[in-house]
This record gives sequence, structure tokens and C-alpha cells, in this order.
Amino acid sequence: MTTNDFLARLADTIATRRPDRGGQPDKSYVAKLLAKGPDAFLKKIGEEATETVLAAKDGVAEKIIYETADLWFHCLVMLEYYGLRPEQVIAELARREGLSGLEEKASRDEPPPTR
Amino acid sequence: MTTNDFLARLADTIATRRPDRGGQPDKSYVAKLLAKGPDAFLKKIGEEATETVLAAKDGVAEKIIYETADLWFHCLVMLEYYGLRPEQVIAELARREGLSGLEEKASRDEPPPTR
Amino acid sequence: MTTNDFLARLADTIATRRPDRGGQPDKSYVAKLLAKGPDAFLKKIGEEATETVLAAKDGVAEKIIYETADLWFHCLVMLEYYGLRPEQVIAELARREGLSGLEEKASRDEPPPTR
Amino acid sequence: MTTNDFLARLADTIATRRPDRGGQPDKSYVAKLLAKGPDAFLKKIGEEATETVLAAKDGVAEKIIYETADLWFHCLVMLEYYGLRPEQVIAELARREGLSGLEEKASRDEPPPTR
Repeated sequence: MTTNDFLARLADTIATRRPDRGGQPDKSYVAKLLAKGPDAFLKKIGEEATETVLAAKDGVAEKIIYETADLWFHCLVMLEYYGLRPEQVIAELARREGLSGLEEKASRDEPPPTR
Repeated sequence: MTTNDFLARLADTIATRRPDRGGQPDKSYVAKLLAKGPDAFLKKIGEEATETVLAAKDGVAEKIIYETADLWFHCLVMLEYYGLRPEQVIAELARREGLSGLEEKASRDEPPPTR
Repeated sequence: MTTNDFLARLADTIATRRPDRGGQPDKSYVAKLLAKGPDAFLKKIGEEATETVLAAKDGVAEKIIYETADLWFHCLVMLEYYGLRPEQVIAELARREGLSGLEEKASRDEPPPTR
Repeated sequence: MTTNDFLARLADTIATRRPDRGGQPDKSYVAKLLAKGPDAFLKKIGEEATETVLAAKDGVAEKIIYETADLWFHCLVMLEYYGLRPEQVIAELARREGLSGLEEKASRDEPPPTR
């Protein structure tokens, strides 16, 4: 798994569920979300984010993993709907890391570190 | 580099920001979040999920990528806090895909497809 | 009937659905939420907040009203679970307004107005 | 307070902060939110919903009251932006209660009670 670009491959599979590529909303959960349109999967992103927060407050490892997987999965469905790819999200994360060794976020939101 | 190799490497970098491993909350945004404890990064997960939803409703590609990156980044911080790894989230996603070709989620939440 | 009289009365009705006061989880949605415990209604708060955001982005008045009602309703269930009352939320809002004519929030979160 | 329609009065005060009614975004937090437009207060609704969930998981009464007040306050700002009133949210809650004694929600979302 480590050398296999799993998120990209999962995004490929999700793409095959697009109704305009033969996905069948009555048989596939993903095809149904894509057919219903944005509110369907965006609600799920809000819902799964809350469930991730609840799992984290409980501190139960399996639940945290499970809910984070749900959250990321629905993000992949959303990306596919808008013709975007997880590689682009990864590239954005890499760009930030390259900019300032993880600290770029701080410079956007907060007073600069006093050094 | 593959997608999940990058997430693993980013998680490694985040791990070096742990206050108990030398991370300095006054200089590093991640160290500060980890030092403050769960509510600090969990609030961000709720906030970034909402910003992702807003960006998606606007349908602006760069904003969607940007906010999803923010959301995943704070998920990585959360995972590190609990001693968990993005590879475990990927493994959970892979497990589901293996179970039933992406349709396992449907069988959990919904009546089975009529076939 | 005034607005907060109604919220107080609705809270009274919700209180009668407590399982320890005779509420029947198999017959009452509220009794079921209260019986299941915090995660059940807290998930709903996250979900309804997202639906309120989606409705607002669409700018459809009825949907905004409907989803805000859902959100406030589940807040009332949450308050009841913890033995709290909507009057206490109203009192907190009144306290803030009294402090500084609506501007107290600004003084908490932001640099003071330049006047 | 019980006979005083506080939410309606608070909504009246918020309405005076509209930039087109003389609200000054540099002096008033509410005027600033209304001037910035939907994403500004919708982000806050997502954020305060998450903070309410976190406060509830901690079970600390004052925090629950405080965060719920924040959440409802930003809902009032949103309602004002769209020309809506808390009385309409209250009317929707009253309509539901009238329909079926609090159980209408169950009939929308769930199999009917077995009676």
C-alpha cells in the first residue's frame, strides 16, 4: 500500500460511478450522491466532521479512524463532482510545506512567531 | 511520490512538532495546536469543514482545493495527537473498497440495492 | 405568546419526553434522542448547522426558516439532557446586550473599535 | 424577561446594525458581519455549532449556555441578512408542535411509531 497511490486510485473508482459515465444511482451509494448533487454530499461532510469531533472527544482510536475515513471519502466524492482530484489537495499541502516548513499556516492566520 | 507516501511524510513532520518531542508552541502553529489540546484542533475541523462546504457551494475550484487541504491538514494534526497515522485511515478506506467495491457504505446505511 | 415564552413551553414539553419521566423511545423522537445520549443529538446539531448553511447559500427563505428551526429544536433537546433551559441562553444573550449594546462580542474576539 | 419578547427585540437591535441602515462595520461586530456577507456569518454558525458540541461533550453547564448563545446569536444575524425574523423560526416550531405534539419530526424521518 505504501507505494500505491491509493487515494488517486480510489478517486478513479469514484469517477466510474458518475451517472454520466454509467454509474447507477439505484445500485451505488456514490452514484446516488453524485446524482443528487452538492447538498447530498456536502451534508455528509458536515455530518462526518461532527462525528470525527465526537469520536476524538471520546478518544477511541477505531472510531477516530473510521470517522476520518468517512470524512475523507465524502471529500473525494465532492472533489469528483467538481472535476477535481485528491492529487491537487496533496499538491496544495506540499506547496505549503515547501513554502515554510509547515509554518505557512501560522503566517496566514496569526501574528508572526517572535523567533 | 505517491499520495499516501506524502501524507505519511507530512504526518512525520507534524509529529516532530509535538511539544514532548521539542515542538515549540510559540514558533510553530502545529506545536501550538498540539499543546493546547483537542478542542483547539477539533474546532478547526468543524470550521474547515464549513469552509469546504461554502467553497463547494460557490463552485470555485481553487477555494475547494484550498479548504479541503486545510481540513485534511487539521485531521492529520488530530491523528498525531491521538498517536494515529494517515496510513490507518487509508487502510480503512482500502478495507471498505475491498469488501464490496465501494458499495459497502451503502449496505451500512441504506436498504440494499434492488439489483 | 412571546418568543421566549414559547421556547420555555417547548422546553417543558421536551422535558416530559425524558425516559426517566415516562418518555417512550419507541414512540417519541425526542425520547429516543434523550435515551441514546449525547452523540445522537450532537450529531444532529452538526448536521442541522450544515443544512442551515446550505439553505442560506441557496437564499431560499422557507428552507432557512425550516433548517434554523431544526437546529434550535435539537439545541433544546441538548439543553434538556444537561438539565439546562432556553431561558438561560436568553439570559446570556441579554447579559451581553446589556454589557455593551451588542458590541461585547467584538470586544472578546477582536481589537476594540477605533471609535 | 418571561413576558418580554427578547429574541424579537434582539433581532430589532441587530437590524439597526445593517450597513444600509447606518450600521458601521468598523465599530460594530454585527455591522461587520452583515457588510462582509454570508460566508462571514455562516462560517461562524459552523464554528459555534462545533463549539457547542465540544462544550456538551465536556458537560460544563456554563460553556454549553455560552456556546449555544453564540450559535443562536449568529443565527439571528443570518436571519436579518435574509430579511427573516426569529418569530418565523418560532412559528415553524409551533406549527410542528401543533401538528402532532412534538412527534412530527419522527414522522418525517423515521418509520411511524408502532403505537
